[in-house]
Amino acid sequence: MSDGPMLFDRLRADCGQDWTDYIDHAFVRGMGDGSLPRASFEHYLKQDYLFLIQFARAYALAVFKSPALAEMRANLQGLKAILDVEMDLHVRLCGEWGIAADELERLPEARATVAYTRFVLDAGQRGDLLDLAVTLSPCVIGYAEIGAKLAALPASGDSTYRVWIDEYSGAEYQELAESAKREIDRLGGLSLTEARYPRLLDLFRQATKLEADFWQMGLDLAD
Amino acid sequence: MSDGPMLFDRLRADCGQDWTDYIDHAFVRGMGDGSLPRASFEHYLKQDYLFLIQFARAYALAVFKSPALAEMRANLQGLKAILDVEMDLHVRLCGEWGIAADELERLPEARATVAYTRFVLDAGQRGDLLDLAVTLSPCVIGYAEIGAKLAALPASGDSTYRVWIDEYSGAEYQELAESAKREIDRLGGLSLTEARYPRLLDLFRQATKLEADFWQMGLDLAD
Amino acid sequence: MSDGPMLFDRLRADCGQDWTDYIDHAFVRGMGDGSLPRASFEHYLKQDYLFLIQFARAYALAVFKSPALAEMRANLQGLKAILDVEMDLHVRLCGEWGIAADELERLPEARATVAYTRFVLDAGQRGDLLDLAVTLSPCVIGYAEIGAKLAALPASGDSTYRVWIDEYSGAEYQELAESAKREIDRLGGLSLTEARYPRLLDLFRQATKLEADFWQMGLDLAD
Amino acid sequence: MSDGPMLFDRLRADCGQDWTDYIDHAFVRGMGDGSLPRASFEHYLKQDYLFLIQFARAYALAVFKSPALAEMRANLQGLKAILDVEMDLHVRLCGEWGIAADELERLPEARATVAYTRFVLDAGQRGDLLDLAVTLSPCVIGYAEIGAKLAALPASGDSTYRVWIDEYSGAEYQELAESAKREIDRLGGLSLTEARYPRLLDLFRQATKLEADFWQMGLDLAD
Repeated sequence: MSDGPMLFDRLRADCGQDWTDYIDHAFVRGMGDGSLPRASFEHYLKQDYLFLIQFARAYALAVFKSPALAEMRANLQGLKAILDVEMDLHVRLCGEWGIAADELERLPEARATVAYTRFVLDAGQRGDLLDLAVTLSPCVIGYAEIGAKLAALPASGDSTYRVWIDEYSGAEYQELAESAKREIDRLGGLSLTEARYPRLLDLFRQATKLEADFWQMGLDLAD
Repeated sequence: MSDGPMLFDRLRADCGQDWTDYIDHAFVRGMGDGSLPRASFEHYLKQDYLFLIQFARAYALAVFKSPALAEMRANLQGLKAILDVEMDLHVRLCGEWGIAADELERLPEARATVAYTRFVLDAGQRGDLLDLAVTLSPCVIGYAEIGAKLAALPASGDSTYRVWIDEYSGAEYQELAESAKREIDRLGGLSLTEARYPRLLDLFRQATKLEADFWQMGLDLAD
Repeated sequence: MSDGPMLFDRLRADCGQDWTDYIDHAFVRGMGDGSLPRASFEHYLKQDYLFLIQFARAYALAVFKSPALAEMRANLQGLKAILDVEMDLHVRLCGEWGIAADELERLPEARATVAYTRFVLDAGQRGDLLDLAVTLSPCVIGYAEIGAKLAALPASGDSTYRVWIDEYSGAEYQELAESAKREIDRLGGLSLTEARYPRLLDLFRQATKLEADFWQMGLDLAD
Repeated sequence: MSDGPMLFDRLRADCGQDWTDYIDHAFVRGMGDGSLPRASFEHYLKQDYLFLIQFARAYALAVFKSPALAEMRANLQGLKAILDVEMDLHVRLCGEWGIAADELERLPEARATVAYTRFVLDAGQRGDLLDLAVTLSPCVIGYAEIGAKLAALPASGDSTYRVWIDEYSGAEYQELAESAKREIDRLGGLSLTEARYPRLLDLFRQATKLEADFWQMGLDLAD
């Protein structure tokens, strides 16, 4: 449609400081240099489990809303990745941190968890598949950017958060994020108009800020 | 976006024979020349009441999906028009045909009623507000075209269907249809791309065919 | 809650003749004795492919609506069964009948396909997970009953419809249907009240009639 | 179903301290004795306007989900009350506080606004009409309780928040809240089971806490 950047890169650039505040949040830097208090990471881990349950619902909604079979199958991959793979990894990681599996689902959701996940789900119900994909993307694609950034740091000597960094900087997750980016660009190619762009940017920016809040919740041990 | 016709006129033209089959259906011609069996009209009237209940739900969904307050208010007008005005007119018209008000809601929905209404509702849930508005439009705008066409016929001497024709050819309904048309054109101006058009045309065509089926159901007294 | 039958058996019994009309439809009997015209089966096969796409969306909706993780995973199994297994079987079966895979998704949906699938999807959006499961059940569980019934018939000498009968009478599908029945009974145990029952029966009956219409569409080669 | 309290009173009682924390929040007490900083009230007023837009969407969803015409009409009353009456009152009240009408819709939503409203909307999409009504009720009915409580206080000599107190303690709003309570009790009578109750209480408690957060946002001038 134009010679400019594809949709995701354009959103990311226009999100500006809000994107940086998320990607470079104190929580993230603390994982990188090992200074993040363990209690903060533990709180984050627990809430992230509850977060994944809602994100699985968002991918189920994406299957429901897909206009064609190919898109249904692609979104089913996302759904399976969460329910069949990521959550098991999470349960294992939580186990290493001494959090029992059967405790996880019964935890109360923190405000930041509610705010972000329900915002995504409603954006999907209110709009179309592109709205949903854009609102999901700060999480899906942002985590790959964060993982890669942290993996590139000189070793800090502290390996506490190594498993997390390895997971999100690993080839498998990086490819998953790349494919989410391609899908947003593809959907943008199909149905982006300039008149619609500001509303998509609003969704993207709000989701990005709610992701930053999620880090902050970990830091603050907020419920 | 282009010098061609606005969205609704383009959809109507591209729908071609399917549009004509609906607008010029034997049921419609029978209302025009008075040859339509009274039992067919009565069956149609009853099902149209059940149809309106579902259409009210579709307008409620449009309020829910509206991206901004102005659109919410506009769709609320549509919802109120159905629940506060059209259904009362319907109850009165049914009364004149000897159909008791409390009988109406308990009637079983005919297949054609189920097919059309649930198709519209699902198109709205699956897509965005433009998908929903396009899928609603063969009914909302088509009835105005049919009303105007029948009102322009030389008087047939038979006044059985005069009330129906007067309602849909009247200034109030014509203006309501005009404003629905403007809204589709406006939404099209905001978010139509050429890549998306074929899918919108599919929705429009399917809805148009399901409207023609609704006439046929009346003619056949089909349940 | 009572000593009476569990929810599914109760719905099935109260559905009465409408259930029999579906289970014992002429299309079904024609598969059993080999008298069903091949063109009817071919028409059915094609529409059933389009039907499965919408049913996959219904299972995705069930994942979205599930109140807890265990139910999300169970409904994901249903979704995967359709998208990863049943549709491939279907493509292979269609191939044996000379219907090319890439032709399938582009076929227009018949009225009966639209009516049934969109009714299910809307029942799910309008109500809760129990409403959705009940509305899906005439298909999921009825096919197992039909498969078992046909498999128990003395061999007719005609093996045209053997693959279909084997699939739905086979242990794998029978177990899938049993587990769907257990799930409805379990959901009923959690949230059935007598005041709610009539509405559930309405959903079940309407879905059963729309399933019978689907057979009739095959018989009539209706579009 | 039992001799115990009707559903709303039962939920309110079981919510315990969380209910008190909301009803008796420092923001509320500050309106009562006039000690609430004006900047806090102003911030609250602005966010409450954005809140009402989402609450109107929730009532539209209630119309969509209503199983029968009577419930659709009742929920339409709620929708009209917000879009046709409350928002105009709000614009007027904001005007008195020097907040221009056209500024309101463009304000960014605070986290607390996003969290509460999207939680309600998702609860409605995920469950049935009772889930939605229960999740809406801490706002609708709680405001009447707060209004009545503040109106019963001895005059503080400070009339800054008198208009707000008069509105929610007034006969019109009190009746609206009473009728919302009756509707929840009625829906409970139709479809409450003991097995379902804990999930409803979870929804009610979470909504109550998110309402308290909304007061806190005002107090903290939080974005």
